Amino acid sequence: MLSHDKNGGMLSIVGIGPGSPGQLTGRARQALLESDVIIGNDVYLAQLGPLIEGKEVIRSSMGHEVERAKRSIELARSRRVAMVSGGDAGIYGMASIVLEVLEHECEEIKVEVIPGVTAATAAASLLGSPLSGDFAAVSLSDLLTPVEEIERRLHAAFSMGTPVVLYNPKSRGRPHNFALAMEIAGKFRSPETPVGIVKNAYREGEEIMVVTLGEVALADSKVDMHTTVIVGGEESRIWRYGHDVKGIITPRGYHKKYLY
Amino acid sequence: MLSHDKNGGMLSIVGIGPGSPGQLTGRARQALLESDVIIGNDVYLAQLGPLIEGKEVIRSSMGHEVERAKRSIELARSRRVAMVSGGDAGIYGMASIVLEVLEHECEEIKVEVIPGVTAATAAASLLGSPLSGDFAAVSLSDLLTPVEEIERRLHAAFSMGTPVVLYNPKSRGRPHNFALAMEIAGKFRSPETPVGIVKNAYREGEEIMVVTLGEVALADSKVDMHTTVIVGGEESRIWRYGHDVKGIITPRGYHKKYLY
Repeated sequence: MLSHDKNGGMLSIVGIGPGSPGQLTGRARQALLESDVIIGNDVYLAQLGPLIEGKEVIRSSMGHEVERAKRSIELARSRRVAMVSGGDAGIYGMASIVLEVLEHECEEIKVEVIPGVTAATAAASLLGSPLSGDFAAVSLSDLLTPVEEIERRLHAAFSMGTPVVLYNPKSRGRPHNFALAMEIAGKFRSPETPVGIVKNAYREGEEIMVVTLGEVALADSKVDMHTTVIVGGEESRIWRYGHDVKGIITPRGYHKKYLY
Repeated sequence: MLSHDKNGGMLSIVGIGPGSPGQLTGRARQALLESDVIIGNDVYLAQLGPLIEGKEVIRSSMGHEVERAKRSIELARSRRVAMVSGGDAGIYGMASIVLEVLEHECEEIKVEVIPGVTAATAAASLLGSPLSGDFAAVSLSDLLTPVEEIERRLHAAFSMGTPVVLYNPKSRGRPHNFALAMEIAGKFRSPETPVGIVKNAYREGEEIMVVTLGEVALADSKVDMHTTVIVGGEESRIWRYGHDVKGIITPRGYHKKYLY
């Protein structure tokens, strides 16, 4: 979305996708190249390499989002600023906090939100087609959402019967939320339900695992904050070629309507 | 995901994003350029312009997905084929049907799924930050899913308390599913809940509307098959600057933890 400017400055909130430069959209790339100042957290900036060379770069560490938002607005009064957000700019990204601060300060600057490939679809693409259609996305981070609220959302999400994507499944500070989520999943899904675990999608150290919900506890140590987990829906199945596991397929329903 | 090849051919299932070439990822662009044959439905091919010039192009119309999938597999035994999918390649895209046919035919060809910007995040970016975190996505198309199942999913999705994205909200053949979905939304959300309606996101004829759930019936005629609808969550609000409606904000929860 594009708002009106006043003093020549502009703020682009740029979703850079999962990590590799190949997953950037053309518009995201262009906004980075056109900006004078790049602001973002270290992990994401490191992925951009030559795209931000020679620019003023303001690095901040994870967890200082409010400060970062305020700083970016201040700078964008007169300069072209790109605020870098991992994945999509909106989903678990920087757009909401920037707009909340703008709203609170009753300030009007030119602001554009540039969408990107979010972790759900990045992880899904590496697993075959585990999403395919309807789904729910729930973050297991309890930094901003109480655990009771996360549990409520998980119950509702799994009762959709569709695949459920878990963002931020684990961190050092909350190692147990993932096991809790798998326990809730077990109330709604059979032990044969496929679970896809993707670590560092499209980044160095990429790992892809497919297990069943019944055996997911064995994969618990593989799950960390760089991981996205997709729990299959009621119709999802493991896709095999002979004995090889190739990924996960959630059928769209064509098999009910067409012969193939 | 990348599977093993046998005969030098390859099939890339390419998510091209919402429409404008600027929303293509680098990898999607590269896959199109490297392919000998491009296969897809007319509407999406028209958006690619010069990227597919000079290539063998196989156009098909909406609704022949199974045939298209079979044809692409046949060709990819020996040639480089790009199967074009609107938005993301997985979410309501072509990946599932291609992989289902591959699985059914016990065939092994080299296949890659290339993620793209899906309609949920494309529409959201034009509305400010209506998603921000957890959400559910439900298609209102009853071509492959019975209406009763759609209703069940909507009830569960709205009971998450989070925003809900509606894909395929209406078509000539099913003009009433949108009103039905709004009726279900009304059981879970107040009439003040913001509803964002985005038509032709990042394409010619782009239109962006923000209404409340209480007045959404007045916007019914604006909704068609090229529209994505985002119904706010329990905490979503309309973002204003003075009397101007700027979009929708769903706060992440920073306001509970930080002063700003």
